[in-house]
Amino acid sequence: AKDLHHSCQWGYGIRWGDGSTDTGMQRLALSEEDKSVRNWFIQTMKDLKCQITVDEMGNIFAVRPGKRTDVPATFIGSHLDTQPTGGRYDGILGVLSGVEALKRMDEMGLETEGGVGVVNWTNEEGARFPVSMISSGIWAECIPLSKAHGLKEVPTVASLPTAASAPETMKSALQKIDYLGSVPCSYKSTPMAAHFELHIEQGPHLVSAGQRVGVVTAVQAYRWYRLNVIGRDTHTGTTAFEHRADALYAFSRMMVRAREVAKSRGCLASVGIVEAKPGSVNTVPGTVSFSLDIRGPETELVAEVEKELRKDFDGIAAEEGAGIGKPCRVEWTLDFDSPAVKFHEDCIGCVQDSAYAVVADAPVADTKSLVRPIMSGAGHDSVFTSKRVPTSMIFVPCRDGLSHHPEEFCSADDCATGASVILQAVVRYDRK
Amino acid sequence: AKDLHHSCQWGYGIRWGDGSTDTGMQRLALSEEDKSVRNWFIQTMKDLKCQITVDEMGNIFAVRPGKRTDVPATFIGSHLDTQPTGGRYDGILGVLSGVEALKRMDEMGLETEGGVGVVNWTNEEGARFPVSMISSGIWAECIPLSKAHGLKEVPTVASLPTAASAPETMKSALQKIDYLGSVPCSYKSTPMAAHFELHIEQGPHLVSAGQRVGVVTAVQAYRWYRLNVIGRDTHTGTTAFEHRADALYAFSRMMVRAREVAKSRGCLASVGIVEAKPGSVNTVPGTVSFSLDIRGPETELVAEVEKELRKDFDGIAAEEGAGIGKPCRVEWTLDFDSPAVKFHEDCIGCVQDSAYAVVADAPVADTKSLVRPIMSGAGHDSVFTSKRVPTSMIFVPCRDGLSHHPEEFCSADDCATGASVILQAVVRYDRK
Ligand SMILES: NC(=O)NCCC(=O)O
Ligand SMILES: NC(=O)NCCC(=O)O
Repeated sequence: AKDLHHSCQWGYGIRWGDGSTDTGMQRLALSEEDKSVRNWFIQTMKDLKCQITVDEMGNIFAVRPGKRTDVPATFIGSHLDTQPTGGRYDGILGVLSGVEALKRMDEMGLETEGGVGVVNWTNEEGARFPVSMISSGIWAECIPLSKAHGLKEVPTVASLPTAASAPETMKSALQKIDYLGSVPCSYKSTPMAAHFELHIEQGPHLVSAGQRVGVVTAVQAYRWYRLNVIGRDTHTGTTAFEHRADALYAFSRMMVRAREVAKSRGCLASVGIVEAKPGSVNTVPGTVSFSLDIRGPETELVAEVEKELRKDFDGIAAEEGAGIGKPCRVEWTLDFDSPAVKFHEDCIGCVQDSAYAVVADAPVADTKSLVRPIMSGAGHDSVFTSKRVPTSMIFVPCRDGLSHHPEEFCSADDCATGASVILQAVVRYDRK
Repeated sequence: AKDLHHSCQWGYGIRWGDGSTDTGMQRLALSEEDKSVRNWFIQTMKDLKCQITVDEMGNIFAVRPGKRTDVPATFIGSHLDTQPTGGRYDGILGVLSGVEALKRMDEMGLETEGGVGVVNWTNEEGARFPVSMISSGIWAECIPLSKAHGLKEVPTVASLPTAASAPETMKSALQKIDYLGSVPCSYKSTPMAAHFELHIEQGPHLVSAGQRVGVVTAVQAYRWYRLNVIGRDTHTGTTAFEHRADALYAFSRMMVRAREVAKSRGCLASVGIVEAKPGSVNTVPGTVSFSLDIRGPETELVAEVEKELRKDFDGIAAEEGAGIGKPCRVEWTLDFDSPAVKFHEDCIGCVQDSAYAVVADAPVADTKSLVRPIMSGAGHDSVFTSKRVPTSMIFVPCRDGLSHHPEEFCSADDCATGASVILQAVVRYDRK
């Protein structure tokens, strides 16, 4: 936990309390702050005598060798980048629990069969470059390298001091901070025996049930889109409603409709980015671009919400501007598609056994009730590693279930519990 | 008309046709392009032997002396700034008709009793600095100078190449282009006998009725607000709808509601600028800022729409986040208030007589039917001059009633008709 807050000195964000660590984080992927924490991470792992590999997506792999050199290492992984108004735990806890695990293993003089590694994945958040988990996606060969290298940063964060005036691509940003490695980004070049990830839940289930550990068995499906609504710029003071093709009004109706449709199917739909052009008080916006994030427990449900919204958005667009025979149009681009995932039985088993062991001393009658199988609402790099190697995750509670917010918080106790569980899970897996 | 398109070489915008003049305009107030056209305007007026005055808002007054020096000049005025996606006629036609009028008077060797002036008002559009007609407002002593000098450019146009990275104030922008004059901006320092303004209608009435001239008798009321909706940033993938205080969702409902309420009272309500923060695909926006422009034929109607929307927006905000006991809040700031205006009988009379005279040769039975009394939906600098001196306006038709759009268009014939009417109106007024 000391290390965790130490690592947060690079890129701390909005202050919410008086304590020295009561701030959020603003460490966008491949920013100067991200560079600093990467440098710190590599130095720390070198001090722990790890072998370091940086691949062509800037993923950093640090391996503590085991007895055998003919098998790949078992990894603990997550990410050190954050949302623009993020917290100190999302991703960071996962990487730091890996650092902590290796320190403990050294203290205990523990030798493992295979090696044990820690990986920091690049741009997991998808906040600066709008595809989440993109670098584990390339490692898993589920996303082509060219797509990632050419991906541009989003305009909203491009105005942050971390970004250049012309939008950077991932490749130019990697070069800028000297993290464009030469090793191919692939599970073939940097193999793993398994991938474990510790994360705050980012939702309210554990905390509201008073439970201490979530054994993550699955991750819900999600898709990210970029939409453009194209209408017609015109004067706000002289143009009757019937004569407008107001792209922002159409957007507003779409956003209201998206919640309705998603709700009716037990899904979520959210807009995080919106840009209206030309952006003048007295000009009706003729162009609106926005992001749409649809999620649901099953891949098919997300597809159904999309289908229904495509129809409804077309209908809304057609109505706006019909009076002048120039209705709005709407264009969809699918940026990212992450089907629902089930984690590996073996890894889930290791996590569950470890969780039971760690909470066994708790002062309650049925300690196992403190552990709960859970589905993840958020995406994680484990989604992509699971396509290639046995994978699972551990959740610990966070205050109010709040995440992607500066006040995101996980108690030192809960961090420690999670770190113990992941250490045990890795050791158990290594012994199998 | 040649001069008009000549003056459009500084800051032409989006191309919509093949002709050499088939482009829109992007000449934001106090930009480099605005500086160039101002320099051209001053040189042109000096060549016409006018006396030039630049005041502390950068308003440029050019006066052709009359026989008497003890009375103020009668002015033709409008503005050379445009919307970010504006056209070649809004404002520009008005100033250029003044240049044309003075040229004609010289050609005809016409001597007037008082002088005749042409004025270019600064930032009429309110596109870069979000208070329209601000400089005529200061001249009329209806707006304090300090408010204008401290006014910041809007963030949406601040990203245009014309603007600096940190938002400029009007004062810093005036200094930057060397147009911060020393003469006080006041009707006392730069008096006028009367103010006439030629403008495209910017609406569909003249063009759809096949009429040629609008005699503007009044201007509708409008108010501009800046609103903030404050909710809570949170994760899009893990936060149930009931647990959200989604400021952008609340905004969307507000925009839909604004149209409903405005419509029910024969008013308009429009949002031209919206900004959602932090602006990341997978973070529910906790803060949204937007502009609201409410207009109506009577000042009271605009006030009623505002009152109803204040209630409704509070209700919408209260619902969003109620599930977590942290509802959204909404804050209103009134940036600009322009009550309904009636122009001066004498000026209206001069315009009407001139309009009848100019269309008298038209090949229709009842030529007077080509002239129509009309209320302006848009604001104009004449709104503020009318508070201090007799004022009225002339409208000419524009294609499809379209304005604040690159394809804004007024035929050379209609421009010429308008220019003839304003020249006659000024001469008639001078002779009174
Ligand atoms: N854990 C997390 O916040 N990841 C970002 C990807 C997502 O949007 O779910
Ligand atoms: N004429 C014109 O477009 N003026 C701008 C002020 C307004 O929004 O009405």
